[in-house]
Amino acid sequence: MEITLAELAELVGGRLEGPPDRRLRGIKGIEEAGPEDLAFLANPRYAKALSHCRAGAVLVRPDQEVPPGLAVIRVEDPYLAYAKVLTLATRRPYQALGVHPMAFVHETAQVGAEVSIHPLAYVGPKAVIGDRVVLHSGVHVGEGAQIGDDTVLHPNVTVYHGCKVGRRCIIHAGTVIGADGYGFVPEGDRHFKIPQVGIVQIDDDVELGALNTIDRAATGRTWIQRGVKTDNMVHVAHNCVVGENTLLVAQVGISGSTKIGRNVVIGGQAGLAGHITVGDRARLAGGTGVIKSVEPGAELGGVPAMPYRLWLRTASLVRRLPELFRRVARLEARLGVDQ
Amino acid sequence: MEITLAELAELVGGRLEGPPDRRLRGIKGIEEAGPEDLAFLANPRYAKALSHCRAGAVLVRPDQEVPPGLAVIRVEDPYLAYAKVLTLATRRPYQALGVHPMAFVHETAQVGAEVSIHPLAYVGPKAVIGDRVVLHSGVHVGEGAQIGDDTVLHPNVTVYHGCKVGRRCIIHAGTVIGADGYGFVPEGDRHFKIPQVGIVQIDDDVELGALNTIDRAATGRTWIQRGVKTDNMVHVAHNCVVGENTLLVAQVGISGSTKIGRNVVIGGQAGLAGHITVGDRARLAGGTGVIKSVEPGAELGGVPAMPYRLWLRTASLVRRLPELFRRVARLEARLGVDQ
Amino acid sequence: MEITLAELAELVGGRLEGPPDRRLRGIKGIEEAGPEDLAFLANPRYAKALSHCRAGAVLVRPDQEVPPGLAVIRVEDPYLAYAKVLTLATRRPYQALGVHPMAFVHETAQVGAEVSIHPLAYVGPKAVIGDRVVLHSGVHVGEGAQIGDDTVLHPNVTVYHGCKVGRRCIIHAGTVIGADGYGFVPEGDRHFKIPQVGIVQIDDDVELGALNTIDRAATGRTWIQRGVKTDNMVHVAHNCVVGENTLLVAQVGISGSTKIGRNVVIGGQAGLAGHITVGDRARLAGGTGVIKSVEPGAELGGVPAMPYRLWLRTASLVRRLPELFRRVARLEARLGVDQ
Repeated sequence: MEITLAELAELVGGRLEGPPDRRLRGIKGIEEAGPEDLAFLANPRYAKALSHCRAGAVLVRPDQEVPPGLAVIRVEDPYLAYAKVLTLATRRPYQALGVHPMAFVHETAQVGAEVSIHPLAYVGPKAVIGDRVVLHSGVHVGEGAQIGDDTVLHPNVTVYHGCKVGRRCIIHAGTVIGADGYGFVPEGDRHFKIPQVGIVQIDDDVELGALNTIDRAATGRTWIQRGVKTDNMVHVAHNCVVGENTLLVAQVGISGSTKIGRNVVIGGQAGLAGHITVGDRARLAGGTGVIKSVEPGAELGGVPAMPYRLWLRTASLVRRLPELFRRVARLEARLGVDQ
Repeated sequence: MEITLAELAELVGGRLEGPPDRRLRGIKGIEEAGPEDLAFLANPRYAKALSHCRAGAVLVRPDQEVPPGLAVIRVEDPYLAYAKVLTLATRRPYQALGVHPMAFVHETAQVGAEVSIHPLAYVGPKAVIGDRVVLHSGVHVGEGAQIGDDTVLHPNVTVYHGCKVGRRCIIHAGTVIGADGYGFVPEGDRHFKIPQVGIVQIDDDVELGALNTIDRAATGRTWIQRGVKTDNMVHVAHNCVVGENTLLVAQVGISGSTKIGRNVVIGGQAGLAGHITVGDRARLAGGTGVIKSVEPGAELGGVPAMPYRLWLRTASLVRRLPELFRRVARLEARLGVDQ
Repeated sequence: MEITLAELAELVGGRLEGPPDRRLRGIKGIEEAGPEDLAFLANPRYAKALSHCRAGAVLVRPDQEVPPGLAVIRVEDPYLAYAKVLTLATRRPYQALGVHPMAFVHETAQVGAEVSIHPLAYVGPKAVIGDRVVLHSGVHVGEGAQIGDDTVLHPNVTVYHGCKVGRRCIIHAGTVIGADGYGFVPEGDRHFKIPQVGIVQIDDDVELGALNTIDRAATGRTWIQRGVKTDNMVHVAHNCVVGENTLLVAQVGISGSTKIGRNVVIGGQAGLAGHITVGDRARLAGGTGVIKSVEPGAELGGVPAMPYRLWLRTASLVRRLPELFRRVARLEARLGVDQ
């Protein structure tokens, strides 16, 4: 990266107070930054570090007081501005590798322009690979599956037959898209498999962490909507819908046919029953066990789920149960009541 | 699929009320089905949909009332019958691919008839691959491992050396069979690895979901018995036994040397301690934490596990702890007792 | 294995009582062992089995009473001694395979001496592979990643670009090292990705189970220190530190920037919040939910975490909540207090 303060201010949509043609080359923490580095101050608690800051410029909030002589770029959200500059600074220009001779691409597959299909990737019959798609080693794109433009599948990702992944998606290593949903009918003591003939549809701008499993639908689709971001080891069962921009933190499990709204946040290791709905903007704390539908905007915790504040309160009272049993026994003794 | 009602009735072992030579071509929901489609009615709650049903035939229970003129096939379990017809309708005839030149099969491996060893699959020394086995890309069958007839290993499945997978099994993508069990002896502050010299044995007709881990035994075997079906991300530690037809739902974890009986159902995210037994036909709710052995037929929930009904009751009372503390404080105040 | 009692005694640092030149060929349980087998007695409860033991020698504690004529080797820790002998007996001499022609090794990678790079393994540009490293099929070593001497990566392991794995490590199948940490900044309703430009550093003598995810740091490193051993499906988020010789049991999840001390034991399915510390030698029971920092040596259980003994106590009292509510209602009735 080499960029002027004027260019930086334009990039982040900020107001520059400092020399527009000063050139920066790096991004560092506010304590470590030198005259050629950009720093940022997102949390006002650390404002006193500005007094001895040597950075070439600092991203600060619009109302931040700063010592004289320190160049700043004022933005509504310095952390977001930092992320944007860091993205620019660390982005490597895309270079298309083409289809490596040690990759397997079936003769009936359609492959877009400027792809990078690395050695030991597999593209099955009638699969459709968009432009600038990157498939790393060990990736499996099954028969008739579709991968949208500019999407990256990291090593050892599996996309089963017929599933669709949108544009600009990032799927981390080992994730499995489109394995059969878990569906059986009892037949005496045994279990008869219900064919899972639906697909998984993943919309644009989705990022899935490593070792996720998104199961194919029994019929129809399991649907991950635009802008969803999952952490590692997230399990989404067949016929679920995960709404736009929803966040699923590590090790969350969602049972079949459950519909999650938009901009929901589900904390790590939470588990959701099947056939329920979670309303838009609900927030579920880590470890929450959800067995019935959740209202939009609700904040829940605990097993089974309850309002988050009630959960905190009951959690502290559970620790005091030994005391409560003693107090009740004392009252009983006072009144001469047998337990 | 093209099939007459007479043929359908025979397939599902049902009693036909309708024209035996009517031909059907598809399977649809009871609301969507047209004159060439089969529908089914498993839940009597939806019976009123029969009044305007346009399906070519409907699978119904033996005692279901139906409007005149609607062709039906009466069976004990319409949902099971539906699954069987759907299986027939969606089954594609098996076509053996042979061993693809971009697969690796060690010269000492034994490979059965009519296999499909796809590009980028690996079969190690002395492995034994049965007839009609399908190995997708990224599959690893380790040294001396055995895969039974008609079994399918989906992409990126790993079967470590010496492990045995039965006939007609389906192993979903990314699952790991036979990694070392977690066994160490303390040596001062460090941990000395105990060699894990046993195997995993998976019997016939088992289906494992995606991203399972079934660890090899310290000595002897970790044993998944016939007809077991697991969901995704299930972990079975070394030396466990999972009995016939048992169901393990997503993200269940079973610690070492635990023995699970037959026809048990273990709900999602449940965790079981090591060296315990779970009796036949026990049912453990999602999230149950099991720290001691479970009687046959028991129904448990909660952490630590308790009878399911007691768990529901205590869960509702935990929410009322703030109230209970207030009530006790009021009694104390009434009696002039200090807390 | 063929070894004399004198050699065995030296191997385990024990005191021999028996014929030094007697030769043993196997290791068996104390009930099954014959004249050419070694057995061990770690738990004094099973001491009576010695009276009819036919083993060629038995590993016993220094003070164990033994019947006359039974050869024994006395050691402080018979189980550790057993593990050492078993390791010797089951170790196969390492044979370097070299780089198989069906593996992909980029021309700019550095590959050490006597490696075994199996068919269908991938080594990216500028990666550095140490001496005697074993890479199984489906392994991905990303650009610039480093793998230390004598380390084994089992099938389908992914090591992302720039990450470092130490010497004598064992990484089980499907584990993912260095996927992007889960970091986003809100931008309106959407989530802007924070580039994850750090790495994962794994020190020497680490063993990771199957299907772990160790995320790369946002900046700097996620650090797994020497001698750490993890079970399967363990998730370690970005910028965590896991201290020397710590044990992480199956399905544990650790949120971002949390620092775990040395010789900690974290039981299966436990979950830890981000930005906390866990002191050396702390022990967390299976399923513990840790939301604040933990003192060195603490023993915790429950959700949220509390002292282990308190957790056991409260768990038993929660089951008695129906009784407690009845007792309080009775007291209220006695005093004429409305609920």
